Amino acid sequence: METAILLISCPDRKGILAEVTGFIAKNGGNILHADQHIDFQSSTFFMRIEWELDGFLLPKEKIEEAFRPIAEKFGMDYQLHFSSEVKNVAIFVSRYDHCLYDLLYRFKAGELPGNLKLVISNHTDLQPVVEMFGIPFYYFPKNRENKLSVEEREIELLEREGIDLVVLARYMQILSDRFVNRFRNRIINIHHSFLPAFVGAKPYHRAYQRGVKIIGATSHYVTEELDQGPIIEQDVVRVSHRDSVEDMIRKGRDLEKIVLSRAVKWHLENKILVYDNKTVIFN
Amino acid sequence: METAILLISCPDRKGILAEVTGFIAKNGGNILHADQHIDFQSSTFFMRIEWELDGFLLPKEKIEEAFRPIAEKFGMDYQLHFSSEVKNVAIFVSRYDHCLYDLLYRFKAGELPGNLKLVISNHTDLQPVVEMFGIPFYYFPKNRENKLSVEEREIELLEREGIDLVVLARYMQILSDRFVNRFRNRIINIHHSFLPAFVGAKPYHRAYQRGVKIIGATSHYVTEELDQGPIIEQDVVRVSHRDSVEDMIRKGRDLEKIVLSRAVKWHLENKILVYDNKTVIFN
Amino acid sequence: METAILLISCPDRKGILAEVTGFIAKNGGNILHADQHIDFQSSTFFMRIEWELDGFLLPKEKIEEAFRPIAEKFGMDYQLHFSSEVKNVAIFVSRYDHCLYDLLYRFKAGELPGNLKLVISNHTDLQPVVEMFGIPFYYFPKNRENKLSVEEREIELLEREGIDLVVLARYMQILSDRFVNRFRNRIINIHHSFLPAFVGAKPYHRAYQRGVKIIGATSHYVTEELDQGPIIEQDVVRVSHRDSVEDMIRKGRDLEKIVLSRAVKWHLENKILVYDNKTVIFN
Amino acid sequence: METAILLISCPDRKGILAEVTGFIAKNGGNILHADQHIDFQSSTFFMRIEWELDGFLLPKEKIEEAFRPIAEKFGMDYQLHFSSEVKNVAIFVSRYDHCLYDLLYRFKAGELPGNLKLVISNHTDLQPVVEMFGIPFYYFPKNRENKLSVEEREIELLEREGIDLVVLARYMQILSDRFVNRFRNRIINIHHSFLPAFVGAKPYHRAYQRGVKIIGATSHYVTEELDQGPIIEQDVVRVSHRDSVEDMIRKGRDLEKIVLSRAVKWHLENKILVYDNKTVIFN
Repeated sequence: METAILLISCPDRKGILAEVTGFIAKNGGNILHADQHIDFQSSTFFMRIEWELDGFLLPKEKIEEAFRPIAEKFGMDYQLHFSSEVKNVAIFVSRYDHCLYDLLYRFKAGELPGNLKLVISNHTDLQPVVEMFGIPFYYFPKNRENKLSVEEREIELLEREGIDLVVLARYMQILSDRFVNRFRNRIINIHHSFLPAFVGAKPYHRAYQRGVKIIGATSHYVTEELDQGPIIEQDVVRVSHRDSVEDMIRKGRDLEKIVLSRAVKWHLENKILVYDNKTVIFN
Repeated sequence: METAILLISCPDRKGILAEVTGFIAKNGGNILHADQHIDFQSSTFFMRIEWELDGFLLPKEKIEEAFRPIAEKFGMDYQLHFSSEVKNVAIFVSRYDHCLYDLLYRFKAGELPGNLKLVISNHTDLQPVVEMFGIPFYYFPKNRENKLSVEEREIELLEREGIDLVVLARYMQILSDRFVNRFRNRIINIHHSFLPAFVGAKPYHRAYQRGVKIIGATSHYVTEELDQGPIIEQDVVRVSHRDSVEDMIRKGRDLEKIVLSRAVKWHLENKILVYDNKTVIFN
Repeated sequence: METAILLISCPDRKGILAEVTGFIAKNGGNILHADQHIDFQSSTFFMRIEWELDGFLLPKEKIEEAFRPIAEKFGMDYQLHFSSEVKNVAIFVSRYDHCLYDLLYRFKAGELPGNLKLVISNHTDLQPVVEMFGIPFYYFPKNRENKLSVEEREIELLEREGIDLVVLARYMQILSDRFVNRFRNRIINIHHSFLPAFVGAKPYHRAYQRGVKIIGATSHYVTEELDQGPIIEQDVVRVSHRDSVEDMIRKGRDLEKIVLSRAVKWHLENKILVYDNKTVIFN
Repeated sequence: METAILLISCPDRKGILAEVTGFIAKNGGNILHADQHIDFQSSTFFMRIEWELDGFLLPKEKIEEAFRPIAEKFGMDYQLHFSSEVKNVAIFVSRYDHCLYDLLYRFKAGELPGNLKLVISNHTDLQPVVEMFGIPFYYFPKNRENKLSVEEREIELLEREGIDLVVLARYMQILSDRFVNRFRNRIINIHHSFLPAFVGAKPYHRAYQRGVKIIGATSHYVTEELDQGPIIEQDVVRVSHRDSVEDMIRKGRDLEKIVLSRAVKWHLENKILVYDNKTVIFN
């Protein structure tokens, strides 16, 4: 069953919901999900609405055109997606394999509604794992000197393969502003701390040092500022004085896997809207 | 700022959302919250929509009449509430005081948007506590013989005081079917287990006996069948072999307080719809 | 660094701890972990103590003999393990692959200190997965008629391979009493509910039907009674009216993986004592 | 049943456990709880051991003297407590009343094994609440000029009343180094964030601004550096884009109450050891 999905944000005012749902009803659409949110601080309206295309009077390729007058009337930012348009995904990885395995399994099992096209790494360690799952592996060694030129080739590959989403599955390299800007709100990173605590390197070591009683993991869209992008999902697990740094790292791996995979899933289902460096998650 | 709230359930079909939001828009209403849900198994549509009355073209007392044709067209069950109509609440309690204190505090602090009118107990132990908070206390001793006649007098009192919601804050008596039926979906109980585990008496003792690693608490609407009513909220806490029954009881008290108070809050905010012995929570 | 581990249970009385730690100290042992617990209801003493073998005056093979008088004096049940003795593990699986993948990864990554020797299944579906990880796969088709004789052959294989622990990774067959008895407290199952809620088949469907707000998973040792064995670990995740049965199944998979792997880890680390159909977890 | 409790920390070496438990056994003591921990990074040994005084051959007042040679042999820091010595507690509060009510209730209900002697505030708002519970209330208005001299008078009062523990129940004043030093590891504060995130003022506002998906609360011993003291306990609750700052504050209140009361309970039960700006919690 194919569906259409509208993601909308605009200044809040009267009548938006009636106009959007009226548009769908008038064209015979059967709404499956409708979720709206108003940020009262900034007076901004957000919406995700999904309806069946079967029986809808407008053909797919005419919907956007037909909707545009409403979008213009309310000054909407909007995205129109179709469930049939599966996003292409690239995973970036260095040497840690837990998130990679987890994602490979979830794509293979059909849990993540995307098309995993390729894996890129700055090391060859995980090539056998990736190929075991039948996914093309690309090796792009990086150092301080070649970083920007290598990124050029990576971007070229991503564009050639039509990549919609880049997942940094514990990729131990910082992407350039140019790269980030090229894939704005389409790069998801997993940070192994409960942000904004422990931004940057070695968060488990610092959590151990600080003596926290709970550790966390955070998935977020990548922006130019390290670990400062819009947070998509977080989760936590209890630790105690009995847990060494190694125990924290081990417990944290399970968090990282789950927190990253939820973010990837919601992104692929078009359930995330970014605004003001924050996310609205329609789930 | 006064608001109107519509709670709707009806068979799902095309156009409901457009019709309801169109009704509000046409009358100049500014929607603050709109949340809908479709149960695809039973093909049932649920909705909670809240809009400002300030600037709404229909006077409060005309809204229901104006909305009725839409309700009839779609075969809706609906409730129309106004934020200005604060519900009257009665608490029933026996001898345990933790949920009572918690609710007394929350009502006093303004956390719960209701009017706590009175407390009823089958014991006098907690009379000083209740009166310390300035709330009328009624003592209705019960035994097997007088139970039904005492309930009659309780119902009489509740009706005289215009009670909309009865909260059983660890009330150790089972209400008769007649009582339950009189306040259908308006009696909230806290059960000190993670239902459906440990229905009935002494759940912490049985949890200890079974060796569970997590205990829970459940708030639910009371029905004729013991601990079988629609679940409103649940929460849990970890236990280990180190926890005695007494430790579980102590840890459980904090759960019970929170789980009960959330349910009371949502009910008072008209955020709960009951169907098929389950709840839809619009929060 | 090799260590010795003593797991002890006995009637509680004065002097046990002094005697056991005195035994280790007298022989020059450096204690790394010592954890004791007294069940005051049954007046039972439990202990796990781990010390370095390096520098210990008794050779490994003499420790048990030297300790026996103490064990006899206090009427101890005890187990003596060495960290160098890695347990042999067999996984039983049917068609669901999420727990299998998870365990295969964890063994491969060295997270689980055991020797995964083989996988047994009553279907061939997961043979490629198992072999992808380089683990021997055995296919034992079962039906009502051949069940007991097939089990004989399974037990034979397990004994030939020196299997210490059997992990049922969503194995959809009930083991006979004979099998269970043969591997008493050495078969770990994952049940996809928060036991004792939803014992038996289709727990997610029943959780959906009951309208619970939290679902869980439980790992336990297998006993003759279905889903009644000693609980090792449980964990939970929130659900709402928005979650379909399929959503619950999906969310539950992540619970099942984590809850099962924790139990396997603790078992392999000799951190579990079973008594009175419950577990003491020294972690 | 009266018990003795030893809290010990010292450089780790062989034989400590045997010597301590031997001391208790030799004198006929019945050990109820024994919990030890070794920090392998710093090679430090920690222990809490509790035994019955009934039947113990040494009279209470002789125990410390008898134990001292062992303490000296191993270079121990140690504390000897008796369950009969109930600690005296003072609560400091400003205008927020949720933690205050919660503590007042828990002391009254016997959940917290301490003697709540008095409440100090820099405002008179909560005087009626405190007196409703029959606890003496002291009003010490503070401003920038008089702060140190007022603190002198507070310390004088605390000393006169024999206060062992100061609980800052959302006390909106920073204590001077002199005060902190006077009650080293005996002042517990509740900070309304998941430390080390959002140190300092308005953490909920900053959590909202940052768009976190989970908020927390932290109880800790107060040191000279703001919100940098040893963390005792933390807990968290989920939030979403739907939660306003006010919702976070409301949800946070329940966290603060629980996280603070757990810390107070453990302190009163002599279950906390502080080292290296961290805590070992023997629970």
